[in-house]
Amino acid sequence: MSNQTNFSLNCPLPITKYPHILMAHGGGGKLMKQLIDNMLLPVFSNGNFVEHDSAILNLTSNKIAFTTDSYVVNPLFFPGGNIGSMAVYGTVNDLAMAGAKPLYLSLSFILEEGLSFATFWEVIKSIKQASEISQVKIVTGDTKVVEKGKGDGIFINTSGVGIIEHNLTINPQQIQEEDVIILSGDIGRHGIAIMALREELEFETTIESDCAPLNHLVLQLINSGINIHCLRDITRGGLASILNEIAIDSDSEMIIQEKFIPVQEEVKGACEILGFDPLYIANEGRFIAFIPKNEAEKALSIFKQENPLATIIGKVEKKEKGRVILENKLGSKRIIEMLTGEQLPRIC
Amino acid sequence: MSNQTNFSLNCPLPITKYPHILMAHGGGGKLMKQLIDNMLLPVFSNGNFVEHDSAILNLTSNKIAFTTDSYVVNPLFFPGGNIGSMAVYGTVNDLAMAGAKPLYLSLSFILEEGLSFATFWEVIKSIKQASEISQVKIVTGDTKVVEKGKGDGIFINTSGVGIIEHNLTINPQQIQEEDVIILSGDIGRHGIAIMALREELEFETTIESDCAPLNHLVLQLINSGINIHCLRDITRGGLASILNEIAIDSDSEMIIQEKFIPVQEEVKGACEILGFDPLYIANEGRFIAFIPKNEAEKALSIFKQENPLATIIGKVEKKEKGRVILENKLGSKRIIEMLTGEQLPRIC
Repeated sequence: MSNQTNFSLNCPLPITKYPHILMAHGGGGKLMKQLIDNMLLPVFSNGNFVEHDSAILNLTSNKIAFTTDSYVVNPLFFPGGNIGSMAVYGTVNDLAMAGAKPLYLSLSFILEEGLSFATFWEVIKSIKQASEISQVKIVTGDTKVVEKGKGDGIFINTSGVGIIEHNLTINPQQIQEEDVIILSGDIGRHGIAIMALREELEFETTIESDCAPLNHLVLQLINSGINIHCLRDITRGGLASILNEIAIDSDSEMIIQEKFIPVQEEVKGACEILGFDPLYIANEGRFIAFIPKNEAEKALSIFKQENPLATIIGKVEKKEKGRVILENKLGSKRIIEMLTGEQLPRIC
Repeated sequence: MSNQTNFSLNCPLPITKYPHILMAHGGGGKLMKQLIDNMLLPVFSNGNFVEHDSAILNLTSNKIAFTTDSYVVNPLFFPGGNIGSMAVYGTVNDLAMAGAKPLYLSLSFILEEGLSFATFWEVIKSIKQASEISQVKIVTGDTKVVEKGKGDGIFINTSGVGIIEHNLTINPQQIQEEDVIILSGDIGRHGIAIMALREELEFETTIESDCAPLNHLVLQLINSGINIHCLRDITRGGLASILNEIAIDSDSEMIIQEKFIPVQEEVKGACEILGFDPLYIANEGRFIAFIPKNEAEKALSIFKQENPLATIIGKVEKKEKGRVILENKLGSKRIIEMLTGEQLPRIC
């Protein structure tokens, strides 16, 4: 997605004169005001963006969704995205998973002293572009600077507000026996894109992160009248951990079929080299939906318009003890657990 | 404020077994779920708190305020507060300065690997206590962990949502000639409390931060029908910088009287030793209000109920070029500028 918009902006600060972030850029004085006035306000100005205190927003619904995420991904740039696009899509997706229409984001930076303005500017441009693609507005922000060695380039927090314009209740407690589990595309690309970079692995084709906004597809499902029971993006911990969380929260025994779970050949190969299981790899643009059996085909056709790899991977067997069973390609079954330990640190 | 509640909670995690934060506590697997389920959910559970994705909130107004702040204060604990209470009050105050009634906060941690659970637990308790004092609910959160040496103990982001239940417009553009400037109390204590700790200065009386929530006082002003023109908390950059920002944003020439600005004797002494001007020192529980002349006495009496040191420090002379003039104790006048450079890094 992030390559679809031809996006260019010139950095308005004389970054050749002051090429790096100084402690004073977070100090509340002239340099901070310069940074905000010249670098952030012109980019994010939209009639709502406020320099201080709070943005005032007039909503069209009293029912809102509110969420937050901090992003510490390392490295900052990776094939298919960077910390900036991720900070927008990740929070947009958390709102979408609650069935909300994402509208407004906050944007808070913790910058490390010595960060180059050129890098910071690239991230700002990506945030702008990603907010346009996902149709959300950045309306309020904050900038802090920590000493060199007390941070790691850029950390970003985005929080989000969305409105809920339907009467569905979307959460694990709504899950019923026989619900069908739809997966929105292939898994494992985000985590492997990052790990390949860290380990300096090279493949014939570059593995790109799946980092993308999910709100448009979710709103299409809602607008088509699909009676969605539960949605969840499969980020940290991967498909296996997320399914386990939902199984526990909904007291559901789920069964999924390994053969239906799409994984790119390059991702499979990288997982073998690195000793990972794609089921535990983080994604940044994939989600699962729990849909009543009789609406599954209709829902799937909407998923497939967005991504032909979307597929039904399994179903809710019974409402009992929460657990997840994987049936492998040979037909044998085993329980799959949540991620134990730290497989991929700082993946988001 | 933070000492007014007798607050005790026992840490539910076996912190003698795992005394420190591990990378896996941010990894999306079992350890992260343990941390959330055992340490965060029981403390912040309030019917709205969600473990994943978004909180769903039913508001009583369509007009909301939305704000964000990241907190990187160093050291984490200081006389009168800590990073936890500050992260609640700071964001509550940003909402209050927009005339909103703060209702909901998000809470996002960036923890450094190796952080002691005992420290983390103290911060969590303070957040809980501060949210009770300011009558806001923590409804959604996130936890990330970065490697030792890539963070600094704890960074916190809180974002906030409040509702606006009145028809006032409160911002710099509302400021009129003759408006009176009310200051809510003595200045300089927060910054000096931090600096004294860093420089290991000792005074006869410990200087305590003024860290406190301002929402109750602001709502009292609004409910009393005061026609508030502008509010601003005087944080980073101190009174001088904040006045300058407002002067520029409102094209107002302001004049303030040095003799009316309350500064504790210990703070004056510390400023002399450290070479600081109290006008540029950050506060965390003080604000200024721009009030029409004919309502100033009524407003001041409300301020004084909260803090007897609240006082009128000056007025808006004319709507022209934005600048701030200080009349000193001898009657001579000078223009005071915004903070230049970095006086006190990581003060909030």
